[in-house]
Amino acid sequence: MKKDGTFMINYPNGIKKTIIANKTCDGNKNRGMNFEAEINMSNEYYRREDRAFVYKKPTPIKVVKITNKKSLPGCISEAYFEQPSTTDYNGIYKGKYLDFEAKETLNKTSFPLANIHPHQIEHLININRHGGIGFIIVHFKKLNEIYILDVAVVKEYSLVRGSIPYDVFVNKGKKVKQGYLIRLDYLQAVDELYNL
Amino acid sequence: MKKDGTFMINYPNGIKKTIIANKTCDGNKNRGMNFEAEINMSNEYYRREDRAFVYKKPTPIKVVKITNKKSLPGCISEAYFEQPSTTDYNGIYKGKYLDFEAKETLNKTSFPLANIHPHQIEHLININRHGGIGFIIVHFKKLNEIYILDVAVVKEYSLVRGSIPYDVFVNKGKKVKQGYLIRLDYLQAVDELYNL
Repeated sequence: MKKDGTFMINYPNGIKKTIIANKTCDGNKNRGMNFEAEINMSNEYYRREDRAFVYKKPTPIKVVKITNKKSLPGCISEAYFEQPSTTDYNGIYKGKYLDFEAKETLNKTSFPLANIHPHQIEHLININRHGGIGFIIVHFKKLNEIYILDVAVVKEYSLVRGSIPYDVFVNKGKKVKQGYLIRLDYLQAVDELYNL
Repeated sequence: MKKDGTFMINYPNGIKKTIIANKTCDGNKNRGMNFEAEINMSNEYYRREDRAFVYKKPTPIKVVKITNKKSLPGCISEAYFEQPSTTDYNGIYKGKYLDFEAKETLNKTSFPLANIHPHQIEHLININRHGGIGFIIVHFKKLNEIYILDVAVVKEYSLVRGSIPYDVFVNKGKKVKQGYLIRLDYLQAVDELYNL
């Protein structure tokens, strides 16, 4: 199993396939893992096709204690998850700096902004101001629909209310097509939203 | 202490100052920490000045076990360091995607390429091909000199020998000025090397 929670299968005919592993102890977390794993798979596809180089940033962890036993070389025996200072993903696409945060919601009518930290919105706003592309990608799980939305719209709603209505994603964002060869073709949605 | 190994001091006159913490158990590691801490401080300065948004990526860690005791909520009790898939730093500067790896050497006459993984060189080459700026920043500790060098030069030397002579950094790279207000003004060197 790879660190993004997926398996790579090499078929005898030379075709490779990535399979998502469903091995987590928390059912709710598991669904999040799959969305993340699907974005990671899409990024892997984009890299193989030489289309974009986008990576998920590792989760920041504060290491407190390292075990120096011979039987467990380099084993961390005490550590804590830390608050990420930026966003989940960044990279390069068509010469542009790309930066986004991926979120899921069970809500069918709106995306609760409590899901995103204000400093993450500010980070994405800074990226846009400096000529990059900053957005969020949101999975409406019960609708099984995925949208991208520019951070300027996210910021606008964060100033006046606690959520972004679903219609805003439909009208001001772009829907991400889900497929087989490429699970989530979010770069096609980026092309459309930003006229690239 | 912040996660980059620094302290922020707020003076009564409104001036803030970042102090490097020297708290590590391994003397050799400590010197590396300082170079990293100085790059992190410089990036903080660039962000405050609204000049660039560059961050260090967290070290990837594979979490194996989480303690679910009430006394230690969210404590990781078993984990391992993983090989980073890309480089130490990336971000946006003057509308461009910036990506680099930071390294130190005690060698005075050359930089041993064993310090950099081939997949990191390939990653930086991909970044350059796609319109980004990929380079390495190297601290010659005994000379106390710091240089940036484009990844194309790094690749060139990696194909024919195991190290890059110091002279190559002097002639084909750019020296990074070390100062007080901004510890390592590597973006000035980037401006010069890439004519930005």
